[in-house]
Amino acid sequence: MIRFESDYTQGAVPEIIDALVKTNMEMTPGYGTDEYCISATEKIKAELECENADIHFLVGGTQTNLTFIASVIRPWQAVICADTGHINVHECGSIEACGTKLLQIPSSDGKIKAEEIEGIAYGHFSDPIREHSVQPGMVYISFPTENGTLYSKKELTDIYTVCKKYGLYLYIDGARLGYGLASDRNDLEMKDFATLCDAFYIGGTKVGALFGEALVIINDECKKDFRYMEKQKGAMLAKGRLLGLQFDALFTDGLYYRISDHAVRLAMKIRLALEAKGIELLYDSPTNQQFPILTVEQADKLSEEFAYSTWCRVGEKVAVRFCTSWATDEKDVEKLVEAIKNI
Amino acid sequence: MIRFESDYTQGAVPEIIDALVKTNMEMTPGYGTDEYCISATEKIKAELECENADIHFLVGGTQTNLTFIASVIRPWQAVICADTGHINVHECGSIEACGTKLLQIPSSDGKIKAEEIEGIAYGHFSDPIREHSVQPGMVYISFPTENGTLYSKKELTDIYTVCKKYGLYLYIDGARLGYGLASDRNDLEMKDFATLCDAFYIGGTKVGALFGEALVIINDECKKDFRYMEKQKGAMLAKGRLLGLQFDALFTDGLYYRISDHAVRLAMKIRLALEAKGIELLYDSPTNQQFPILTVEQADKLSEEFAYSTWCRVGEKVAVRFCTSWATDEKDVEKLVEAIKNI
Amino acid sequence: MIRFESDYTQGAVPEIIDALVKTNMEMTPGYGTDEYCISATEKIKAELECENADIHFLVGGTQTNLTFIASVIRPWQAVICADTGHINVHECGSIEACGTKLLQIPSSDGKIKAEEIEGIAYGHFSDPIREHSVQPGMVYISFPTENGTLYSKKELTDIYTVCKKYGLYLYIDGARLGYGLASDRNDLEMKDFATLCDAFYIGGTKVGALFGEALVIINDECKKDFRYMEKQKGAMLAKGRLLGLQFDALFTDGLYYRISDHAVRLAMKIRLALEAKGIELLYDSPTNQQFPILTVEQADKLSEEFAYSTWCRVGEKVAVRFCTSWATDEKDVEKLVEAIKNI
Amino acid sequence: MIRFESDYTQGAVPEIIDALVKTNMEMTPGYGTDEYCISATEKIKAELECENADIHFLVGGTQTNLTFIASVIRPWQAVICADTGHINVHECGSIEACGTKLLQIPSSDGKIKAEEIEGIAYGHFSDPIREHSVQPGMVYISFPTENGTLYSKKELTDIYTVCKKYGLYLYIDGARLGYGLASDRNDLEMKDFATLCDAFYIGGTKVGALFGEALVIINDECKKDFRYMEKQKGAMLAKGRLLGLQFDALFTDGLYYRISDHAVRLAMKIRLALEAKGIELLYDSPTNQQFPILTVEQADKLSEEFAYSTWCRVGEKVAVRFCTSWATDEKDVEKLVEAIKNI
Repeated sequence: MIRFESDYTQGAVPEIIDALVKTNMEMTPGYGTDEYCISATEKIKAELECENADIHFLVGGTQTNLTFIASVIRPWQAVICADTGHINVHECGSIEACGTKLLQIPSSDGKIKAEEIEGIAYGHFSDPIREHSVQPGMVYISFPTENGTLYSKKELTDIYTVCKKYGLYLYIDGARLGYGLASDRNDLEMKDFATLCDAFYIGGTKVGALFGEALVIINDECKKDFRYMEKQKGAMLAKGRLLGLQFDALFTDGLYYRISDHAVRLAMKIRLALEAKGIELLYDSPTNQQFPILTVEQADKLSEEFAYSTWCRVGEKVAVRFCTSWATDEKDVEKLVEAIKNI
Repeated sequence: MIRFESDYTQGAVPEIIDALVKTNMEMTPGYGTDEYCISATEKIKAELECENADIHFLVGGTQTNLTFIASVIRPWQAVICADTGHINVHECGSIEACGTKLLQIPSSDGKIKAEEIEGIAYGHFSDPIREHSVQPGMVYISFPTENGTLYSKKELTDIYTVCKKYGLYLYIDGARLGYGLASDRNDLEMKDFATLCDAFYIGGTKVGALFGEALVIINDECKKDFRYMEKQKGAMLAKGRLLGLQFDALFTDGLYYRISDHAVRLAMKIRLALEAKGIELLYDSPTNQQFPILTVEQADKLSEEFAYSTWCRVGEKVAVRFCTSWATDEKDVEKLVEAIKNI
Repeated sequence: MIRFESDYTQGAVPEIIDALVKTNMEMTPGYGTDEYCISATEKIKAELECENADIHFLVGGTQTNLTFIASVIRPWQAVICADTGHINVHECGSIEACGTKLLQIPSSDGKIKAEEIEGIAYGHFSDPIREHSVQPGMVYISFPTENGTLYSKKELTDIYTVCKKYGLYLYIDGARLGYGLASDRNDLEMKDFATLCDAFYIGGTKVGALFGEALVIINDECKKDFRYMEKQKGAMLAKGRLLGLQFDALFTDGLYYRISDHAVRLAMKIRLALEAKGIELLYDSPTNQQFPILTVEQADKLSEEFAYSTWCRVGEKVAVRFCTSWATDEKDVEKLVEAIKNI
Repeated sequence: MIRFESDYTQGAVPEIIDALVKTNMEMTPGYGTDEYCISATEKIKAELECENADIHFLVGGTQTNLTFIASVIRPWQAVICADTGHINVHECGSIEACGTKLLQIPSSDGKIKAEEIEGIAYGHFSDPIREHSVQPGMVYISFPTENGTLYSKKELTDIYTVCKKYGLYLYIDGARLGYGLASDRNDLEMKDFATLCDAFYIGGTKVGALFGEALVIINDECKKDFRYMEKQKGAMLAKGRLLGLQFDALFTDGLYYRISDHAVRLAMKIRLALEAKGIELLYDSPTNQQFPILTVEQADKLSEEFAYSTWCRVGEKVAVRFCTSWATDEKDVEKLVEAIKNI
């Protein structure tokens, strides 16, 4: 079975495994205060051209989202997000469990628009009895979205402008950030995120690491006391260096970008094969996830050799997801391309 | 100014005021253990023909909703409700503040359907990786809804059947219960609620009392330890007798029903006047709230003499709400009817 | 049976009952925006000589405590209090239910000391790995304490000085504030509270009202968005005027002070009788609660005619509590005094 | 610098590193459903002679504690623990952040007694107005305690008997479980934990793993829906196999016990050296943590060559902590022993 069902089925890039082996018996202080965390922090700051950013290394995406959001939002505030947003549908109510309501914007492709955000914010703050409703306090978006789509620099700038107008924090979930940056259709650079939001995270779990996400806090208002929250939420790894050395490796010599390019290049091969076959795509994704709408027969046929995830029904057909990753073998993609041709 | 903007602008029925005056210097134990609470409890149980119900008296609707829901729902469970549900839009995130996500069903008239509930429940429990999403644990509906509409006995039975099939509690917000029961179009009796849900509350604040809601817990699983939750949420009134004597009065000699009938009868006069004038209604409400869609001129004209609440824009027009209550003066309604004729 | 077991067994002062009767059929807007709330607010501000205070009227003490504390404390912060503090022992974990830890100072009389607070705060903020522990964020004290004792102006000033040194809010629970101010041994005036803490509440439930507490927020940092929290916690009374008119009555012509004096004067009669009899007191309370340590025989004897609350065992003896209130009949006190003489 | 300040300064046992390297490019399903997790589960069940246990692998101790406790405790319930308990002092209020109060028992050595637990439980459940206080719902103890001390089989049996009498869950924090089992003074076996509590965790982070704790749920009532909670709290590792393969290695051929023995044997060498020198120990610890009370001169002298953690002031002296671990080099211990002789 060749597996394309997710982008976290394998371990880590060899550089990370090597670093783990090499440093195993070193003695370091705990909780992210070690030299590897410091070195990784410096490398990411350099990448962002932002000396003032605070960088924290956490283990997973749900953990990063809930810890950051809970650290800045007040109890009566809400987070605006797409109804398809990961925090809304796939984190088992983790944000609400911290006491925070999500205000959902219906989305057909995973993206939300500056005007939609403004509609909610204006509606709220112009309401004379607004205290009967939650107060918008933050906007959450994903880059790329859960559907593989991307915000353009213009779209992101517009969203951040609205956020600042209404005093909303903008937080970006970058679980697959590398795969967004690697897209041909992307016009944002890593460093742009340091000026176009209040905080974001650089995903490692899906992009080359065993586990780990690097939370980048840009806005000074959001920095103080974050480590308390990290500890309280069980998100402060005792042997924090395990995170530091992974991100140190990923941000040495452009490794993070190189492995992301690999994944997206292979995803585009799959996409081309699907399009050549006349198979419709559920979302127009220029990144590492592809969502073909297959007939049941096509889906069954492919499942004999390839694992994918089932996304949703589309009339009589079924939309499925194929993911590539840093670890995908080009030969496996060639086999898939060949199989697509023949269904 | 004649006020129709809400159904809680005035004090209480004279019977309640008399009881307050008469009992003022009596000494009673606190926290709902007094004789007035006991008496009111007995009267409500008799009304429900349900000796096993647990009755608790709380001060307000938001408080009752959050205290009950938080007392039965587990942290990973969610409450299914209409997107227009009071807990979703007008209680400032009180349910989420207790850690619970709401799963919203889009509704055009405030009602949700058994099939829609089943769609969510089946979808969840048949998902092999369901623990990534919140687990449906309860259904919340309002009777009447926030839009004045009613569930029929058939509809309520269907909903409760689905709830039992999937292990969901059914909880009914009866802030305006009396006004629902009083409607010509209603086919439910008070006692039906004792067999068609797990818990509900009988609204007092909007139906004759100074304040107060009587929570009725039918399902034994939901009864134990409720008083802890009541205390923890600040919902246990020290001089609990103030609630007991109000509900004792309301459930003596059918007062609750009589005053509800009054309100609905007057609301129907307003409705007829609106219909006679050819004014469209936003919702088809057979209860004490009426939602005409007015031109801006009509709305302005009426606002000279009458207070109403503004509901939403409808194209160039505006939908507004007129409420009657137990306290509405028939002469005021006649003036409004006259005014409607002339706009 | 003559009841001394608590100070909330009876209704309200006649002035309040009169106001309720008189205003019953008036139509007012809801949620504390009515004229009675405005009038009461102005009267309290005048009393405090503090035009900038924000005043909110809530229904009960637990509700007021949890709503205010939750509105200002951040998730990683804790509240320092006496281990005997009401929020620590008699509010069913209401503060923890909002996510906040209490840091308890052992207390023999209900009071805590500035040095004890400083010990905790200094210890925390000087700890290099302080994020492993909760961060002190607030000090909670009661005036009078749950044991009837009082802070002197010097003691309160010292506590507030330490609070400001370490960035802690000082919040005072004034459930029995009137009875503290009325004591011969008290050297604080109502207006002093406007300069010696960040927020406090003026208790009504135990001091003349049917129910109700007036929260006074002094510190500007604590004011913004409080009404959201009030709504979210189910603490915003629909017919808010019921609270406004009660406090309006209490703060007209010094009624609040007059009724408090009455209660404390009678409590001192009881205390003198106990002391004359050589009965030891558990706490040296100069306010409306008295805690004699009785032999089992004495306790049994008194219980034939008088209701009191049992406090705790003291060796072979038992400490009990007698409360007077605004409503206590002097004749009942005389009977108790006589009974004490004869046990 | 030779480091004895904690037992988590180094990586993992070679067997784990080897497994990571060997399996790196394998493709496995996520979230703990892979073969390595299944294999580790089977090995632990065999060790416990308990086929019905549920085993979940989580990343860290704070995370394990909060996730399990929050999954079984109801909102009005509290957890009884020693005032020195890790959840009470070193997890930044993580349990309260989930809404749960801790009821603390003062402890001089980290242990609590069955009678103390019974005192709290009996006091609560016999109180007629118990709903004003939180309801005891669980007992939390650590084995070994944070002070290195151990419960005997008799003590643990007594505690569990009281727990069952009052309907309290017993949960054991086994962050250093191996080091407790390895002690000469211990009379408990791993499998005893399967019959003497409702749930416990086998610590990996401090005992040979890079990270990871194996939560063992014995009581059927606590099992259902745990994975929802794990997901919600951000505690479900995407590449769950990383945990599975670590515990698989630790529970192959008795590795977990062997490495624990090593640590405790070396700790006893340090203890003997301290005792020979006449240095008092703060706690009578038969496990891997030793707490000598040093003069400031002694402490300074040792700090030139050895890192330790400072525990607390003891009069003019200072208590410090030396930890050994699976990774401690015997030569380093010999150097420390020599240094102790000469101070």
